[in-house]
Amino acid sequence: MTLLAPLHAVLARTGLDALVLVPGANFRRVFAKDFHQMERPLAVIVPREGEAVAIVPNLEMGSFTPIGFPGRVFDWRDEAGYMAAFMAAGEALPQLHGKLIGVEGQRMRVFDLLALQKALPGAEFVDVHAEISAIRLHKTPAEVELQRKAIRISEAALEATLQDVRVGMTETDVESLLLRNLFSNGADGLSFAPIVAAGDNAAKPHAHARPDYHLKAGDALLIDFGGTYQGYSADITRTFFVKEVSDYDRAFYETVLAANAKGREVSRPGLTASDVDDAVQKVLEQSQFTEFRRHKTGHGLGLDVHEAPQIMRGNAQVLEPGMVFTIEPGLYRAGEAGVRIEDDVVVTENGIECLTSFPRELRIVG
Amino acid sequence: MTLLAPLHAVLARTGLDALVLVPGANFRRVFAKDFHQMERPLAVIVPREGEAVAIVPNLEMGSFTPIGFPGRVFDWRDEAGYMAAFMAAGEALPQLHGKLIGVEGQRMRVFDLLALQKALPGAEFVDVHAEISAIRLHKTPAEVELQRKAIRISEAALEATLQDVRVGMTETDVESLLLRNLFSNGADGLSFAPIVAAGDNAAKPHAHARPDYHLKAGDALLIDFGGTYQGYSADITRTFFVKEVSDYDRAFYETVLAANAKGREVSRPGLTASDVDDAVQKVLEQSQFTEFRRHKTGHGLGLDVHEAPQIMRGNAQVLEPGMVFTIEPGLYRAGEAGVRIEDDVVVTENGIECLTSFPRELRIVG
Repeated sequence: MTLLAPLHAVLARTGLDALVLVPGANFRRVFAKDFHQMERPLAVIVPREGEAVAIVPNLEMGSFTPIGFPGRVFDWRDEAGYMAAFMAAGEALPQLHGKLIGVEGQRMRVFDLLALQKALPGAEFVDVHAEISAIRLHKTPAEVELQRKAIRISEAALEATLQDVRVGMTETDVESLLLRNLFSNGADGLSFAPIVAAGDNAAKPHAHARPDYHLKAGDALLIDFGGTYQGYSADITRTFFVKEVSDYDRAFYETVLAANAKGREVSRPGLTASDVDDAVQKVLEQSQFTEFRRHKTGHGLGLDVHEAPQIMRGNAQVLEPGMVFTIEPGLYRAGEAGVRIEDDVVVTENGIECLTSFPRELRIVG
Repeated sequence: MTLLAPLHAVLARTGLDALVLVPGANFRRVFAKDFHQMERPLAVIVPREGEAVAIVPNLEMGSFTPIGFPGRVFDWRDEAGYMAAFMAAGEALPQLHGKLIGVEGQRMRVFDLLALQKALPGAEFVDVHAEISAIRLHKTPAEVELQRKAIRISEAALEATLQDVRVGMTETDVESLLLRNLFSNGADGLSFAPIVAAGDNAAKPHAHARPDYHLKAGDALLIDFGGTYQGYSADITRTFFVKEVSDYDRAFYETVLAANAKGREVSRPGLTASDVDDAVQKVLEQSQFTEFRRHKTGHGLGLDVHEAPQIMRGNAQVLEPGMVFTIEPGLYRAGEAGVRIEDDVVVTENGIECLTSFPRELRIVG
C-alpha cells in the first residue's frame, strides 16, 4: 500500500481525474507531516492515471523529502517565485488539461486555485472537501489515544483554572490562567483561541474575552477551549455560574444539560448525524427556552477542530465505530447569558464512549 | 470617515468594482474584530457604488452586530446552509454582475469563491491580496506598542527557557518549556507553532520538534517562535550551541550574524525591500558558505505573521516610516546544522528601530 492509496480510493469513488491536496489535516493524515500555510504555496496533485507531482517551496525540501513522496517534485525558490514550478507541474500532467479535478474547498486558498488554473488549462476544479476528508472519518485506536491525551490535558487545565477564578477578575484574566494551565499540563498547541465569556458575552457563541469586563455574582461563565496533542484536538465547553445562580438560570442550564445528556444517550452506530441532532434539538425545542437556540449539535473532531461528521439535521451520514464528534447544545439569551455544554465522544460497536469526563453538574465558582 | 474608507481607497486606487473581505488580518484591521474561519463562511462585499453587504453565520450575529457594519446583512443558520444568503446578497448587488471583483487570494478559501461566483454571475474575481493588505503596511504607534509588548513577552520566555535547557533534553522538551514560558509571561496566543530544532533538524528552515532527539554537545539549537499580544505577533529566531561549538560552526554563525547586522545597518526609508535583501544576501554570497543559502531576508509582521513588505530581491516596495519587518538571514548545511538570526524592526524617519533586543552574540547553552 502506497502513501497515495487513500487518495486513489477517493478518485475511484468519485470518478474525478485528479485530486489536489494542500497542507492541512488531510495532507497530514496522508503524509504524516505538517507545513505552514503562509505566502509560499505547497500543493500535491494526484492524477487517477500517471505519476503524482508536488510543488514545494525550496526551503521546505528538507522537511518534504523525508515523507517519501512517490512522484515528481517541482521546487521553487523565493527569488524565482512559484509560478514556474506550477507551469512545469502542469506540463508534466498533460492528461489533466481540460479534465475534472477535486480540491479541498474549505482549505485551499484562492491563490493556489488561480495558479492551478493557469498550469492546467481548461481543467475544471470542484470542491470535494467532504469526499477527501472522508479519509479521516474513522479514527484508528492510536488516533483516539492521542485525542484522549489532548482531552486529559485540557480537563486538568480547566480544573486548575477554576481553582483560581474569583469574582472581580476579568475575562482575559481567566483566559490567561487557562492558557498557562494548558501548556503547563502538556498541551503542544491550541485547538483554537479559547472562548472565555461571562454575563452577556456568554450569549455570543463565539465570543472573545474582554479585558475590561469583571466577573460578578450571578454571571454565567462559559469556557470553550481545547489543547492539542500531536496535532489532535480537544474541544470542551463547560458553563459555570459565578457565586450564585437564579432559579431561572438554573432551569436554563438544566435544559441544556438534558439536551447534552440526550445526545450522549441516543448516539450509536446506525443512527444518522441528523437523527442525533434531531433528538438533541427536540429537547431544546420542547422546553420553555426554544427561542434561544442558535446552532447545530456538533461536529467531527480530529486533526481539524471542525470536521465531518457535522451533527446537524439533514446530514444523512450514518454513524459508525471510530467516528469522533462533539455534542454541544447551547442556549443564548442575547444581552443576558448563554450556556453550552460540550463533550467529545467516539462511536463504539454498541453506542459511544464519552472521551470527556469533566463533571457536568451545575457548578458555582469564584 | 466610515469603517469602509480604507477599502474605498483601495477601490479608487485599483479601479476594481468591488472588494470582498473574509475574516483575517485585513478584516480585523478594518472592523477591529476577529472571527473563526472554519466550515461557516463569513464575507463582506464592498462595491465601489452602492451599499455594502455582509453574509454572516447567524450564531456570529451577536459578535458581528457590535462592529457597526454600514450595510445590509444576510445571516444564515446551520439548518438552512449558507448558499441562500449568498444568493440574496448577490441579488442585492445587481451592479456587480459581470464586473471585476478583488479578493484576498492568500486568505479566501475556494468554497467562498465558488459561492460568490454563483451569487454574482459573470463577475470576474482577481487576487488583490497585496493591494488590500497595503492598508496594514504602515503601523500606527499604538500598533507598534502592541508588537513591542508581544516581543517583550517572547524574549522573556526565551531567556527563561534557556535557563532550563540541558544536554540530553529532547527538542519537544525544550518546545514545551518555551510554550509554558510564553503563556506564563502573558502571551495571549502563538504567532505560529514554534520551531525548536537541534543538530541536523536545524538545517530545515521550518522543522518540527522531535520527541526522540536528545540535545548533544556541539549541536546547533535553532529556536524560531513568537507569542501574540492582542493579535499582534512577535517573530524571533536565535540559534545557540549546546555545550560547545567548533571553529567551523563559529565561522558559520558569525557569517549569519554579519548578514543580520548588515540588514539592520542598511535599512532606512527610501531604500527598497529589494535593496535590503540584496545587501544581506551579498554578505552570505561573498562568504565561504554561499551554497547554504535557502531563503529571502524577511517579511512584514503585524496582524499576520508573514505580510508585506516581503524583504526579497525584486520587490520594489520603498521602505517608509511605520513599516515593520523581519531581518532573518539563515544558512543551512543539510544533515549537519542550521543557523538563523531574526530580528523585528520598525522603519523610523531616519533608519530603523530594532524592536527585538535579545542578545545576538554566540551563546553556549546546556
